[in-house]
Amino acid sequence: MIQGIGASAGVAIGKAFVLPNWEWSMPETQVNPVDLAKEFERLYEGIRTSKDELEFIKKEFREVVGPEESSIFDAHLAILDDPVFMSEIRGIIERQYKAAEVAVKEAIDHFVAMFDLLDDEYMKERAVDIKDVGNRLLKHLLGAPEVTLPSDTQPYILVAKELSPSQLAHLNPAYVLGIVTMMGGMTSHSSIMSRALGIPLVAGLESKLSSPIQTGELLIIDGDNGNLYVNPDQATTEHYSIVRDRQREKRQQLELLSSVEAQTRDGVKLRLAGNISSVKELDLALKYGAEGVGLFRTEFLYMDRQSFPTEEEQYEVYKLVAEKVGEHPVVIRTLDIGGDKHLDYFQLPEEQNPFLGYRAIRISLDRKDMFQTQMTAILRASVHGNIKMMFPMISSVEEVREAKAVLEEVKKDLDRRGIPYNRNLQIGIMIEVPAAVMIADFLAEEVDFFSIGTNDLVQYALAVDRMNEQIAHMYHPYHPAVLRMIRMTVEAAKAAGIGISVCGELAGDERSLPLWLELGVSDLSMSPQALLKVKHRTLNTAASEARRIAKLCFRSRAAEESERQLTQFLDKAIIQPVVKGDA
Amino acid sequence: MIQGIGASAGVAIGKAFVLPNWEWSMPETQVNPVDLAKEFERLYEGIRTSKDELEFIKKEFREVVGPEESSIFDAHLAILDDPVFMSEIRGIIERQYKAAEVAVKEAIDHFVAMFDLLDDEYMKERAVDIKDVGNRLLKHLLGAPEVTLPSDTQPYILVAKELSPSQLAHLNPAYVLGIVTMMGGMTSHSSIMSRALGIPLVAGLESKLSSPIQTGELLIIDGDNGNLYVNPDQATTEHYSIVRDRQREKRQQLELLSSVEAQTRDGVKLRLAGNISSVKELDLALKYGAEGVGLFRTEFLYMDRQSFPTEEEQYEVYKLVAEKVGEHPVVIRTLDIGGDKHLDYFQLPEEQNPFLGYRAIRISLDRKDMFQTQMTAILRASVHGNIKMMFPMISSVEEVREAKAVLEEVKKDLDRRGIPYNRNLQIGIMIEVPAAVMIADFLAEEVDFFSIGTNDLVQYALAVDRMNEQIAHMYHPYHPAVLRMIRMTVEAAKAAGIGISVCGELAGDERSLPLWLELGVSDLSMSPQALLKVKHRTLNTAASEARRIAKLCFRSRAAEESERQLTQFLDKAIIQPVVKGDA
Repeated sequence: MIQGIGASAGVAIGKAFVLPNWEWSMPETQVNPVDLAKEFERLYEGIRTSKDELEFIKKEFREVVGPEESSIFDAHLAILDDPVFMSEIRGIIERQYKAAEVAVKEAIDHFVAMFDLLDDEYMKERAVDIKDVGNRLLKHLLGAPEVTLPSDTQPYILVAKELSPSQLAHLNPAYVLGIVTMMGGMTSHSSIMSRALGIPLVAGLESKLSSPIQTGELLIIDGDNGNLYVNPDQATTEHYSIVRDRQREKRQQLELLSSVEAQTRDGVKLRLAGNISSVKELDLALKYGAEGVGLFRTEFLYMDRQSFPTEEEQYEVYKLVAEKVGEHPVVIRTLDIGGDKHLDYFQLPEEQNPFLGYRAIRISLDRKDMFQTQMTAILRASVHGNIKMMFPMISSVEEVREAKAVLEEVKKDLDRRGIPYNRNLQIGIMIEVPAAVMIADFLAEEVDFFSIGTNDLVQYALAVDRMNEQIAHMYHPYHPAVLRMIRMTVEAAKAAGIGISVCGELAGDERSLPLWLELGVSDLSMSPQALLKVKHRTLNTAASEARRIAKLCFRSRAAEESERQLTQFLDKAIIQPVVKGDA
Repeated sequence: MIQGIGASAGVAIGKAFVLPNWEWSMPETQVNPVDLAKEFERLYEGIRTSKDELEFIKKEFREVVGPEESSIFDAHLAILDDPVFMSEIRGIIERQYKAAEVAVKEAIDHFVAMFDLLDDEYMKERAVDIKDVGNRLLKHLLGAPEVTLPSDTQPYILVAKELSPSQLAHLNPAYVLGIVTMMGGMTSHSSIMSRALGIPLVAGLESKLSSPIQTGELLIIDGDNGNLYVNPDQATTEHYSIVRDRQREKRQQLELLSSVEAQTRDGVKLRLAGNISSVKELDLALKYGAEGVGLFRTEFLYMDRQSFPTEEEQYEVYKLVAEKVGEHPVVIRTLDIGGDKHLDYFQLPEEQNPFLGYRAIRISLDRKDMFQTQMTAILRASVHGNIKMMFPMISSVEEVREAKAVLEEVKKDLDRRGIPYNRNLQIGIMIEVPAAVMIADFLAEEVDFFSIGTNDLVQYALAVDRMNEQIAHMYHPYHPAVLRMIRMTVEAAKAAGIGISVCGELAGDERSLPLWLELGVSDLSMSPQALLKVKHRTLNTAASEARRIAKLCFRSRAAEESERQLTQFLDKAIIQPVVKGDA
């Protein structure tokens, strides 16, 4: 058994397919000076093909995995437009009469070496991107075949030194049982993507293996614990076959719960809604029984485009979503870009601390034209279903009032145009900035509902960027300060008689259920993948008992203590699934 | 009158000196191949001289302005060690037989052009640094004289397109009445430095001037309002002479207050202490009557060096400070690096959001060797005065306990070594992370005192990086959420019976005084420059009246409303300086 990093959960058993590194053989002939123009044309053709391919992969990826993960391809596309990189390539062809592929290869090597020398993480990442894009371009110039993956009739466990985003994008999730990478950790691109795709992954095995894995060897990976077995013995294989089958069976059983109502054993009803970024995700959420959409991230409408989406384009999507969801509510969050989310056509300033910068409502209030267009589209769609509107990143009463003032103008404009809309459209805000928690009582008087965004709230409250591996272990949703902030927010909402829901990742963590039962929060919104797990958990929980545990957590001084209590409560429930506990 | 940006307060009247741009004439002769080694030696000699000069300027600057501002020179020193930049220069000499100065010039031009092309703020800043360093190197290679400033017997107002840090570092503050720059804004290096040096500065005048200013023209600058007058008429000159003289007189009058006790008109006593970064700043604080040091930033001990300071080196400085301060307390904050503060010899990871990253206590607890050394030095010095120890960036009870456990080990070690120390050394923490506010009651049971760091607290609470010009206007210390956080912290400290002080910039804002009087906070620590202003304000304030205003602020829903109330209260007091109000 070899211990690595369990970067994506689940057990996989299968034969290894070891991904060869991209290696090319270069033409050695020089370009005849009279053929220079032709060589340039070859280069441009290669660039065009690479761009088309990248756009296609990006689109596919966005639909399967989500808009945030697919944004990596924007960086790749940008490199193909980078004047410095391109002039280097052209220079080599023009002055040294080398073939386009040789020029590309030399330019890649030069930039990668230069950026590596700089000893700067930012530049090193650019180096990886340049290498990846350069290889794609080379592939098209050389007419070389795509790296050969095993035939799709034969599922395999993929083994690679490191998977680039482009490589991952080409995998067929149906045939990749699991992934093993030598490099990488919890937050590398391949890990994030594997989790989104639900493929088990064990990473960080470099220097752990005594000899390299060979294609065809039998592997077992346990992504929950980060274990890898190469050519395991019979007993291990049997053990893990059982674990894997149990996991598979559990998944299938869970799917039976889709149409069951979410209520605790003692009759407390919850409404579990989905967080979605696209219509594709909505279909998944509905398949898993989501009672509405608690968070519709509208960013995807703005991504992968050359300009802002028109009112009409947005209206069509909002209408479609509202109609598909039917009577249940659809909470549409207005544009939340900035931070780590960017648009190709809307230049944002380079920032030292983008999370503490120009983002979300701050941009919308600054760019009222764009904001009005979105609001108009949402209002127009509001007659087709149960739509609500929500503003992200609110930190003051003034911001809410300013946003509402813009909304009033938009309504007046629709009245003038004679276009119908829901005159009682509910307005809510995300509570995700600490300041919003502190003035939740003031804010509650301004809006119809709050939705707690635990991801950002935890980051700001603890001053911890969870994507920063150095301190990611400090990101604690169960930190006593966070629990108190959540409670303050819920109490302010209840005192004012407005709606309250939770749409941060914490809602999809089944261990958190006792907290919501204790606080009396019945609206939870989560990723479609989490819906059935949380519903199963709800069905197997007695609210009375859960509240007792939650009370301990709200009194606790340490995040670890609360997490331990909640985890134990969960484990206990799982060991005694049917008989245990009562109301 | 021309309207610019008032980047550093104060009025200045004087003749313009227009700084010429650095221009060089290059040798046209080629290097004889046999002299290549000699040419390299010239290059290396120029680099050595440039480095020595940069080290010297950096040291001077740190002492006058402070360690944070001087860190810009580290970036410059790093460029002189940059392998890519240097190999480019060497390559030009070696392959093209050009003189060292020509090679340097071409390399600068190449890199600046390349970085500018990248359309990336980070790279553009590097381009400015490379240009600045390259010009310094050129100066030494060409033996060209330093840019000629007017003789020091003739004070002047300096006019420049843009001032590089190196240029600013060479100014004699005694002879620069004021500065006018075409480029720049509130947060450019020259503005930050001018504020620290107390030199009035109006920036951002590019495109505002119909014709360029000429050396010798009479200028008036009003740094409070961002106004510039070129060749003003008699009446304007007379008006501003009076304003300037009044400012000067007020400064002189304030200095008379140094030895007066800080108490309100109705007898509420405050203790005003200094925030210091160096012994030089301590001298200034003591001159202005500081009753102790409320915040000793120990970063300066770690900067401008090749390695961590030894226990002995630190002990000597802490001892000196404690002895100079005498009976009053000296609160020594343990190392607070990370964020925007770096050390040459301690590589920190490149971070996406450094303010939400690896910094302060997080580093100390990770690098216990370094932490123990600092604690040992502080404990040893504690017998020479009234020293207290404070931990920055605390966000959980566990962190405090872990830090105290390290302290216990250090104490045991000192016992073993038979070295005396204050066994009752008081331990405190900065309250600057929102989580710490939320669990202030838990934290209060762990320590002897709190000190509220308003700068970071405001940034985290509102999710606003105040150095980010795009959203700097959202940085509001009087935001209702911040006021509530301050009140929660003070109440928790009082309930637990521990000490409470404020050491963020808000304490040095004289408008904030009513808040502290209402909350019953009597320990305020601020930059030495703010001490007399706040003391003057205290002497002219009736606490009873101030509390009435503060109550309005604590009820207010809007930062602007509180700020307006406090500003009005201040203005009223200034208009009626002696007779107004009573207890």
